Amino acid sequence: MLAELKKEIYLANMDLPKYGLVTFTWGNVSGIDREKGLFVIKPSGVPYDELKPEDMVVMDLEGNKVEGKYNPSSDTPTHVELYKAFPEIGGIVHTHSSWATSWAQSGRSIPCYGTTHADYFYGEVPCLRCLNKDEIEDAYEKNTGLLITDYFKENDYKAMPAVLCKNHGPFTWGKDGHEAVHNAVVLEEVAKMAARCERINGQVEPAPQELQDKHYYRKHGEGAYYGQGK
Amino acid sequence: MLAELKKEIYLANMDLPKYGLVTFTWGNVSGIDREKGLFVIKPSGVPYDELKPEDMVVMDLEGNKVEGKYNPSSDTPTHVELYKAFPEIGGIVHTHSSWATSWAQSGRSIPCYGTTHADYFYGEVPCLRCLNKDEIEDAYEKNTGLLITDYFKENDYKAMPAVLCKNHGPFTWGKDGHEAVHNAVVLEEVAKMAARCERINGQVEPAPQELQDKHYYRKHGEGAYYGQGK
Amino acid sequence: MLAELKKEIYLANMDLPKYGLVTFTWGNVSGIDREKGLFVIKPSGVPYDELKPEDMVVMDLEGNKVEGKYNPSSDTPTHVELYKAFPEIGGIVHTHSSWATSWAQSGRSIPCYGTTHADYFYGEVPCLRCLNKDEIEDAYEKNTGLLITDYFKENDYKAMPAVLCKNHGPFTWGKDGHEAVHNAVVLEEVAKMAARCERINGQVEPAPQELQDKHYYRKHGEGAYYGQGK
Amino acid sequence: MLAELKKEIYLANMDLPKYGLVTFTWGNVSGIDREKGLFVIKPSGVPYDELKPEDMVVMDLEGNKVEGKYNPSSDTPTHVELYKAFPEIGGIVHTHSSWATSWAQSGRSIPCYGTTHADYFYGEVPCLRCLNKDEIEDAYEKNTGLLITDYFKENDYKAMPAVLCKNHGPFTWGKDGHEAVHNAVVLEEVAKMAARCERINGQVEPAPQELQDKHYYRKHGEGAYYGQGK
Repeated sequence: MLAELKKEIYLANMDLPKYGLVTFTWGNVSGIDREKGLFVIKPSGVPYDELKPEDMVVMDLEGNKVEGKYNPSSDTPTHVELYKAFPEIGGIVHTHSSWATSWAQSGRSIPCYGTTHADYFYGEVPCLRCLNKDEIEDAYEKNTGLLITDYFKENDYKAMPAVLCKNHGPFTWGKDGHEAVHNAVVLEEVAKMAARCERINGQVEPAPQELQDKHYYRKHGEGAYYGQGK
Repeated sequence: MLAELKKEIYLANMDLPKYGLVTFTWGNVSGIDREKGLFVIKPSGVPYDELKPEDMVVMDLEGNKVEGKYNPSSDTPTHVELYKAFPEIGGIVHTHSSWATSWAQSGRSIPCYGTTHADYFYGEVPCLRCLNKDEIEDAYEKNTGLLITDYFKENDYKAMPAVLCKNHGPFTWGKDGHEAVHNAVVLEEVAKMAARCERINGQVEPAPQELQDKHYYRKHGEGAYYGQGK
Repeated sequence: MLAELKKEIYLANMDLPKYGLVTFTWGNVSGIDREKGLFVIKPSGVPYDELKPEDMVVMDLEGNKVEGKYNPSSDTPTHVELYKAFPEIGGIVHTHSSWATSWAQSGRSIPCYGTTHADYFYGEVPCLRCLNKDEIEDAYEKNTGLLITDYFKENDYKAMPAVLCKNHGPFTWGKDGHEAVHNAVVLEEVAKMAARCERINGQVEPAPQELQDKHYYRKHGEGAYYGQGK
Repeated sequence: MLAELKKEIYLANMDLPKYGLVTFTWGNVSGIDREKGLFVIKPSGVPYDELKPEDMVVMDLEGNKVEGKYNPSSDTPTHVELYKAFPEIGGIVHTHSSWATSWAQSGRSIPCYGTTHADYFYGEVPCLRCLNKDEIEDAYEKNTGLLITDYFKENDYKAMPAVLCKNHGPFTWGKDGHEAVHNAVVLEEVAKMAARCERINGQVEPAPQELQDKHYYRKHGEGAYYGQGK
């Protein structure tokens, strides 16, 4: 069942330790088959070096397990909400990667200080509020998802494929699991350079809007000219 | 004698350089056989790449060497006190891992800034005072152990399997040597992210208590639902 | 066509990930054949582990593609301006290497705090202004090149083979692609140590001019005595 | 000539990149045969991955080359002064290792904040003044050596086998090249943790003298009990 998608998402999960984004089992990637309305996700708490493609768990968009011998990632209800609210995404990543998580813990959004950031994320990467007591105690992971999708009712989830959850860590997404991992790697690098940049100059200002526009649209949309075209 | 435990603790010791927690010989893992009242520990000052399972030294809980051609780790009297006072632990780790030691040198406890911390350590990781002149000059390593066990008379050593000794470094423990090493790796990661988090936001506050509760109890105790169950 | 130069510049490009200077495709090296007036450069957006020597794109100094199945790096117009204005260079590197880019984002030039810096770069590594709206919107990459070459009308590009572009990142150059990469590695190390040095001592002053002179001229010019001579 | 010493010092030099202490050729190890009054040292500017044991250059204590096809390290006159003034050392290391060099550039001595430091270095690692204009212009490398040996007329070079030269970098020494490299690795680790410690607590004080004494004498001198004895 969904053998190809399982393999793709297995490989995307294995990229998390390869790029240094996870310690132990602290991360997960999922990917969706939009036609069937099913997604596959890493099982909860299984070490990366024991993981196999067939271990990926198949879920539906009500959060029911459709197939799999393992429990799905405990963050699965968050993934469900994102897939339901963001119709054009095909993959989601959650990690506790060190620099992005440090920003999330600090409660600050990551300002756009340069072109590395602007090439991928349009504007500052938002840090959302911590859930309140009721939201935490009842359906914590689902409420995390609702908090994120609520924010993106007013914002473009395609121009900003990343978010920080306060006191927790980052989520990223993309057209498939591979792109979602790619964005997680970029976010970590951007988070690192923004922190160092502020230390080097405590008065630093975000990059001018026209530079942010230039770099973002150099890689995205109608007028894009970076890379080898379609 | 205790061949299986020696092998297990040998492997746990070898995980210290694998996870980047030690330089040269600056670390040690021990593990106990509660039925026999004996524990095995790394020999003192032997390089990791020369270590063999049979080099592990067997000790009793009075601190006497029962078997082994080498001297045990110089920190052995600290391990003895912890095994005596914490009846449910099976393994202990001491390292000079870089970030945890930097916090220990700074004399500050590590606040709980997020869920990575809360998943493993309930509340701030305590930094205990430096020993005084008398305690240092007479039975230094034993007194280090007594300082730790004294603190945990009023605190739960199972909900906080880590401590920092001021001007020195961290100790961690767990149900066996493997879990104690696991906790040492987590502590290092948590120490790193807490330091960076404070640099990104000098006014940062600890995570709300309800979030700390949620994450700790998601993984521990009766209602735990992380991972694949028992 | 230019098979030897392609191979040399291919190898220089492959040194960027080897030395940890690039994430994904964020960097490029070019090298010029001055007699033919042609240079070769990495194609745009092709991953390093798929790159082959024959993929290098051949360009002339008007910025026309002379040979190659791929589009050249989107930074090619910047390289063109540097080759035209700096007659004695043979290779150029652009990266988003983490520490140098953090300085570029901060908008600060890198002071010369010690002999590691002085051995390669004479004086502070300049951080140039951000381009203005008109310069960004029309011929952005070419204008980046003109901004750099304009600065070096009044400054010696051979004594300072590196520059930071504000909100963007570093460019370095040298007598060939290999030396340009060498300078990019040194710049990253110097940027790292300057940032740390300022954290250790917030009042630190640049190294005395006589020490800067000594180290620079120990390795460059008539009286050089470092290394094995010519 | 001195084939065994050449091999030993070759291996000690190869440990510098292995432990991450050098970029390119920025470091050198020497070792002395006290009976013959000759020492061997790395050649100047030869890459580590091309180095062979027979490339080591043999020097006498007047600074004359006795054997070798290459020029010796440009820092050779500094080594000469240290061998002459410190009769019980057998090896010397100079690097531009990142954290120790950052302290040297900052002009600050490294305070003893904990037992990792105290196990190897008794008291703060001194940062000596920058040479003045005359000292730099005439016999720079020799004057660097004299500045160091001058400091140790009043201080114990065996209890402090390391020094920082302002705006330059560290030198370490030991009973042979291997121990000198060991001390260079420790210095880098200690420098890193001291910088981080100060960031975590801006008001941190050095470790109490009695703790420094305890750890230093646990490993050195008559009453030492760390390791496996003689």
